[in-house]
Amino acid sequence: MQWFQKTIVIRPMPRGCHLITSQVLRELETLSKLRVGVLHVFIQHTSASLSINENADPDVRMDMELALNHLVPDNLSYVHTLEGSDDMPAHIKSSLMGCSLSIPISDGALCLGTWQGIYLCEHRDHAECRSIVLTLMGVNS
Amino acid sequence: MQWFQKTIVIRPMPRGCHLITSQVLRELETLSKLRVGVLHVFIQHTSASLSINENADPDVRMDMELALNHLVPDNLSYVHTLEGSDDMPAHIKSSLMGCSLSIPISDGALCLGTWQGIYLCEHRDHAECRSIVLTLMGVNS
Amino acid sequence: MQWFQKTIVIRPMPRGCHLITSQVLRELETLSKLRVGVLHVFIQHTSASLSINENADPDVRMDMELALNHLVPDNLSYVHTLEGSDDMPAHIKSSLMGCSLSIPISDGALCLGTWQGIYLCEHRDHAECRSIVLTLMGVNS
Repeated sequence: MQWFQKTIVIRPMPRGCHLITSQVLRELETLSKLRVGVLHVFIQHTSASLSINENADPDVRMDMELALNHLVPDNLSYVHTLEGSDDMPAHIKSSLMGCSLSIPISDGALCLGTWQGIYLCEHRDHAECRSIVLTLMGVNS
Repeated sequence: MQWFQKTIVIRPMPRGCHLITSQVLRELETLSKLRVGVLHVFIQHTSASLSINENADPDVRMDMELALNHLVPDNLSYVHTLEGSDDMPAHIKSSLMGCSLSIPISDGALCLGTWQGIYLCEHRDHAECRSIVLTLMGVNS
Repeated sequence: MQWFQKTIVIRPMPRGCHLITSQVLRELETLSKLRVGVLHVFIQHTSASLSINENADPDVRMDMELALNHLVPDNLSYVHTLEGSDDMPAHIKSSLMGCSLSIPISDGALCLGTWQGIYLCEHRDHAECRSIVLTLMGVNS
């Protein structure tokens, strides 16, 4: 049984959904040795989120952001408004989308479907850097 | 430490929420030997999703579909419309519901609550087959 | 490789979002020995959910409940209404928020971000006790 863990920092991103699959894969030196396992990805923030969705057409990421803003309006009668009008909606989107992913590993690669990619969804207007903890567990070939 | 992994294919399902607990359990020959562990279930698609919800009344699955369509209307001003008006809403529902489940295992069985079942939520009108990767990890009795 | 599993019971909570981080941590006697690992948290119910969100300002939990009620109205034309008007909305919120969490472990502690806490979200008006299965996996120092 092998364990590997690393925290990576993603530079500030504009509000919206961003494909980070290749950035994540680049950090997983030991992935290729695993016969079977699971990759766990965890974002250590409450106003950004992780998701898996379509990896080809950038319009999907634009429409995802459109839908998130439709689902969670900026102008509900929020009480927690001290950090700006985009802050409380960001917390809600974070819980709806989720802060972690688990992806199966088979024969040294992530078992993502053909059209699946890893999204970092930034819900703040003026974001900071985002820390992501990668935890790889599995057995070697 | 035991690992077991298998990809199963679910035949095309109508748009809506479907209970697949027994189909999943049927594939887990080695589950009964595990004293403690976790089952990971991962759908390799971006327009269908997995969830855990009520396993008894089919009306709950109907109402879940009703609510998903209320939450994510087909007629927002989406840009990604080439694959039909049900495609972009399907991507959004997939991210809201999620593409993976992790279920604890105890004494050779899934630790599902009395009313919990595994849902495959099909968000397309005319779906294809769906691939699901099952990964079982744990220790034997 | 170490495994530890325990089911805890949370006393009935009012409808809304509640911080349970310290209640969970109190049950994890073996956490401090793990060098690297993952904590899995699973609620065995379909009308309550688990999430990770802001751990400091109680207003965030109030606004989260406000937003959930905006997202999933009590008065859609649900068919499953036998158990009360809050029941079907509770099932939908449960699937949107999710019934499980996975949190990385590093050097004997959960790798939660500074502002992250564990929420139990109670979606029923008159809830019962809630069972949560904690599964800890990892390697010792």
